[in-house]
Amino acid sequence: MAMKDMILRGRANVLAVTGVDCSGEAWAIVADGAVTLYTDFRYIPMAHRVAPALKVRDVKRFEADLRRAFGGRGAAERRVGFEKAISVADFEKLKKVLPRAKFVDATRVLQRRRAVKSADEIAKMRAASDLNVAIWKDARRMFRAGMTEREMAGIIRSMMYERGDGEAFDTIVCVGANAAECHHVPDGTVWNGRDGVLVDMGVKLGGYCSDMTRNIPPKRRSALYRKVHDLVLKANRAAIAAVKPGVTGKALDKIARDVIKAGGFGKCFGHSLGHGVGLEIHEPPYASKKSDWTLKPGMFVTIEPGIYLEGNLGVRIEDLVLVTETGCEVLTASAKEDE
Amino acid sequence: MAMKDMILRGRANVLAVTGVDCSGEAWAIVADGAVTLYTDFRYIPMAHRVAPALKVRDVKRFEADLRRAFGGRGAAERRVGFEKAISVADFEKLKKVLPRAKFVDATRVLQRRRAVKSADEIAKMRAASDLNVAIWKDARRMFRAGMTEREMAGIIRSMMYERGDGEAFDTIVCVGANAAECHHVPDGTVWNGRDGVLVDMGVKLGGYCSDMTRNIPPKRRSALYRKVHDLVLKANRAAIAAVKPGVTGKALDKIARDVIKAGGFGKCFGHSLGHGVGLEIHEPPYASKKSDWTLKPGMFVTIEPGIYLEGNLGVRIEDLVLVTETGCEVLTASAKEDE
Repeated sequence: MAMKDMILRGRANVLAVTGVDCSGEAWAIVADGAVTLYTDFRYIPMAHRVAPALKVRDVKRFEADLRRAFGGRGAAERRVGFEKAISVADFEKLKKVLPRAKFVDATRVLQRRRAVKSADEIAKMRAASDLNVAIWKDARRMFRAGMTEREMAGIIRSMMYERGDGEAFDTIVCVGANAAECHHVPDGTVWNGRDGVLVDMGVKLGGYCSDMTRNIPPKRRSALYRKVHDLVLKANRAAIAAVKPGVTGKALDKIARDVIKAGGFGKCFGHSLGHGVGLEIHEPPYASKKSDWTLKPGMFVTIEPGIYLEGNLGVRIEDLVLVTETGCEVLTASAKEDE
Repeated sequence: MAMKDMILRGRANVLAVTGVDCSGEAWAIVADGAVTLYTDFRYIPMAHRVAPALKVRDVKRFEADLRRAFGGRGAAERRVGFEKAISVADFEKLKKVLPRAKFVDATRVLQRRRAVKSADEIAKMRAASDLNVAIWKDARRMFRAGMTEREMAGIIRSMMYERGDGEAFDTIVCVGANAAECHHVPDGTVWNGRDGVLVDMGVKLGGYCSDMTRNIPPKRRSALYRKVHDLVLKANRAAIAAVKPGVTGKALDKIARDVIKAGGFGKCFGHSLGHGVGLEIHEPPYASKKSDWTLKPGMFVTIEPGIYLEGNLGVRIEDLVLVTETGCEVLTASAKEDE
């Protein structure tokens, strides 16, 4: 499929079309099927090394090149794609350089292309997820009573930078009732070795993200904990069983939500069921009440129902799932029955 | 100073007016001097804990509240500030909810307010910078021949998360010729204990960032290395000597650049002299060729000249400097003469 004419600014989109990950200012111009990367002179040696065949130019030349690519004869008839996620300031700059161009929102086109992964990307996603599971297993063995959440998160983080490309997001470690805050920041709370621990983690590898949530159960599981845990696990399994091409993200969310509602905890599952994963930790397809995405083979989606009881406990079980031709494959090969 | 009516989305601006750091979707409305934070339900318990007096509402209520605050009688005459750094999609949402409002760019107003730090903020910046220097000293003692750049960066990163709030930016460690790439990503390059090592690091503490660059000199310093190092140090000192209220960021950049030019390496100093630091690692005032900022007491600026010779060597010396009533104070209390 030939690419439409586009001007890209988003880090993951620029990476997707150029193969180069620039943390500074970077743009990509796609004109008549040819891709050029514009970046700060500081990233140019890296870009040449990573993508030897790519045309790379200093970002100082961006505006002049833009004018040459899209501003000449026929400019008024030309449709140029852009991302609605760019800043108002950046968009004003584009409109100033190309006053006659017709800018069209390319967000959805880009999302659709990135949501379905190629065989090469699937292999990379698998490697990232396998590493995430391996790190979880190794880290868990190093957890000791007396450690703080911060120390436990530090063990995971260090392994992610040693064995992968670092964290895909800030690692979450919650001891006991802290798990009721689903985006709790690891703090000085000490683990007594008996309370439950919730860990939400994702390592980056080869540019791709992974994501999983597991729970170390409390030594003595109260009847409430068992009930909540079993219900979350049931919702997780019901949704996974339903993943296949043609199912909508909305339907998937409903399947898990209905299980939790039927168990009497509907109001305690306040977030969406899941999201796509790839170059970014959150990307389409979304599995939520309002999602208009339909699953296709090659898409990834997290299945992460949770129940949160403020000041008491929280349980979330999250797997990363690949949509296949006939159903799905769970990438997160780590026990979740009793953890 | 009463705050103007504004709608804020940027993480650091929201933090600056509310005191709450939200990594998810968050907005702040400033209307008639009153501040309200809108955030995802997952961050609300944290927001209440961090800022008990602040009005916090679920982000689901944002649009309705916006209409109530700015959409009623007199809406057409009302000027509402916004940030040009928000996305085109977010701005379109605001315009849809408030079709009659006059949106004015508040970027510069917000930048000006944040650039000059209060006594409390100065104390926090000092604490962050002191911790950064302490971590550098401790980390440096742990560096051994045979370690990779990645391992050395890992030592620094772990300390930043243990003793502070983590990294203000990805720690840079460059062995030998890798220092010629000024945004080199630490990789598997092994330090033989004899080559030079460039380290650019900044820890976050209490919401504020720090920033410094130091160099472990090679065991045998070539004449070229000495020449380059001495020139960079001379440029660093000349610029620091010139920091005082009333000096422009442009003039400051020129002072350092002229020193390096006079030494014959003008083309090898391809970036700006420095930037402000605060809630964000890069913020105004900028010290660059094009900067239109003028220094005032209470501003912070980095002074970081560098010389980069591709495939050969790189030296950058960076201090964090506080503008005082009469001149400046260098916060980075770490030797730079022979390192």
